Amino acid sequence: MNPVYNFSAGPSVLPKKVLQTAASELVDYRGSGMSVMEMSHRSALFEEIIRTCEESLRRVMKIPDSYKVLFLQGGASTQFAALPLNLLSGNRKADYVVTGQFSKKAYQEAKKYGDIRLAASSEDRNNTYIPRLERKDFRPDADYVHICLNNTIYGTCWDYLPDTGAPLAADISSCILSEPLDVSRFGLLYAGAQKNMAPAGLTVVIVREDLIGKALPYCPAMLDYKIMADNGSLYNTPPCYCIYMAGLVLRWIEEDMGGLEGMKARNEEKAALLYEYLDSQEYYRNPNEKRVRSRMNVTFVTGDAALDAKFAAEAGKAGLLNLKGHRSVGGMRASIYNAMPLEGVRALVEFMKRFAAENPKK
Amino acid sequence: MNPVYNFSAGPSVLPKKVLQTAASELVDYRGSGMSVMEMSHRSALFEEIIRTCEESLRRVMKIPDSYKVLFLQGGASTQFAALPLNLLSGNRKADYVVTGQFSKKAYQEAKKYGDIRLAASSEDRNNTYIPRLERKDFRPDADYVHICLNNTIYGTCWDYLPDTGAPLAADISSCILSEPLDVSRFGLLYAGAQKNMAPAGLTVVIVREDLIGKALPYCPAMLDYKIMADNGSLYNTPPCYCIYMAGLVLRWIEEDMGGLEGMKARNEEKAALLYEYLDSQEYYRNPNEKRVRSRMNVTFVTGDAALDAKFAAEAGKAGLLNLKGHRSVGGMRASIYNAMPLEGVRALVEFMKRFAAENPKK
Repeated sequence: MNPVYNFSAGPSVLPKKVLQTAASELVDYRGSGMSVMEMSHRSALFEEIIRTCEESLRRVMKIPDSYKVLFLQGGASTQFAALPLNLLSGNRKADYVVTGQFSKKAYQEAKKYGDIRLAASSEDRNNTYIPRLERKDFRPDADYVHICLNNTIYGTCWDYLPDTGAPLAADISSCILSEPLDVSRFGLLYAGAQKNMAPAGLTVVIVREDLIGKALPYCPAMLDYKIMADNGSLYNTPPCYCIYMAGLVLRWIEEDMGGLEGMKARNEEKAALLYEYLDSQEYYRNPNEKRVRSRMNVTFVTGDAALDAKFAAEAGKAGLLNLKGHRSVGGMRASIYNAMPLEGVRALVEFMKRFAAENPKK
Repeated sequence: MNPVYNFSAGPSVLPKKVLQTAASELVDYRGSGMSVMEMSHRSALFEEIIRTCEESLRRVMKIPDSYKVLFLQGGASTQFAALPLNLLSGNRKADYVVTGQFSKKAYQEAKKYGDIRLAASSEDRNNTYIPRLERKDFRPDADYVHICLNNTIYGTCWDYLPDTGAPLAADISSCILSEPLDVSRFGLLYAGAQKNMAPAGLTVVIVREDLIGKALPYCPAMLDYKIMADNGSLYNTPPCYCIYMAGLVLRWIEEDMGGLEGMKARNEEKAALLYEYLDSQEYYRNPNEKRVRSRMNVTFVTGDAALDAKFAAEAGKAGLLNLKGHRSVGGMRASIYNAMPLEGVRALVEFMKRFAAENPKK
């Protein structure tokens, strides 16, 4: 049987080695007689799992001690509300930059809770670029500024961090752990884990300690960062198995991939293979500004919707799965997260060449 | 090696057969070349998994068509806020009955959102009983009344359903799927899945359709039942793997256990074994009123804190795990959920007899 390569935008491919370890430990975790799924979250065994996971994440991402790491539930979409509910603590003002669908959802959700301003948007050119912003583009009395660092649907990413004055909060769901990131440049980072970190069901928040403890009065306790931080993410039962899986993925990044420097080199190599091919021909086209092309989600179109549909269907039959673009954009999208091997990208480029040769445009 | 029996109150024991199936399918789900953990939540494969899970739950619990079934995240603790944010839509009044720690937390959280009244409490006698309530004990203009059907920490459960007038909302986290329940008596039911249904990370809400669609303006989108219902629990990425596991557990209940009637007979047999032993001797004591004793969580004390500690430690060495009572109550607690085999309860009773004989009280 030919290998299958899964280009899903999330939930998405996980390292084969991690899945094999999980399968071998699933019924009986290291001689305990229990599955990790059956462990009390207050047992010594699970406490070691969650502590190890947090320590690994801090080490891999070089998270400063002045930041809290929270293991939560509900995905980035829950953070769209939690963020303003926690951080609109000063002037109840925040500035948002919209560069895709999720940053727009974050902006719309935040408007329930304060004076939220659209600082800039790339919707005028279908989110194919990232606005160039300076300090003067943000309100000086904003409590925070929000961006989405990698736009999963449009396949763009920020190639610089804006000088905002106010603390910068970023959704990093689709680029967390893909390359080094200077955490100290941010007030808050959050990510759904289901792209580069773990199965769906875990959300990671990394927040500067001085920003928390001032939640709005009607903030649900479960969305209050201070409560979760004070309880070490064990205020209630956390998504234990996802935390265990994140620990395995982090170990794989550290021990097998050379940490985030190694991940970056690997991810750049994969993305270059695809973009260099895209730039070398005229059958397929990537619509985005070159400097903001995502290394995680690579979009392309043939310019003919019927050919696009045929491409995704035939690729699927050839074992290249989930290449259909997001329903709001169309075309194709190859998500090439950390766990996608170089061979998968090579197989995709070969398929693209073959498909172009066999399906000439009229 | 002797078998290990895990009496944890949650996360807790899962059926061995379910864990074995999960392990065998973990790396490659039925020849798809992917783990369930890697599947897009919008793929045909996962859509079948979530649809099958909902259909099984509706069949097993006999849920009327007029109720929505939602697969959410965040545990019962998130529902403590979601419930008032969604259901305080009329007079912004609700009545709560406090019979343990979680119903108290639910009551305190709800107070953020409206005029919340404590209708009754069993705290005066350390939650060893359930108040006897009638229609006159509730406000006629309450939007809903909240109870917790099984009190995990104190080991009690409601032996009747009060006539409330207003829709009855119940936390059934620690008794869901343990026996038949007349869903039509409730306006809303919710449960964290990590006791009788799936690994931690999934919350099930069953809500009468006419009660939703009137959330308070500052209700986070992710806590809005109407949004989740309109999107078939796929507004964002759901906890896919937990939903898959819940499907396996439901199949086990239907095919191997004889549905909820079969589960009830089995759970009654296990509980009777423990309570009959407790009532037959004077070394251990269960503090609760007989008619409200829980069939899921059985608490007992020796009356001597040092002996209690010795009991839990020695039981652990004998493979009877997690018998220490909740830190807020002390003593011992045996959680004997659906997946605890009768042999586990037999082994516990034998151990209790031996411990009593070997450790006479002074």
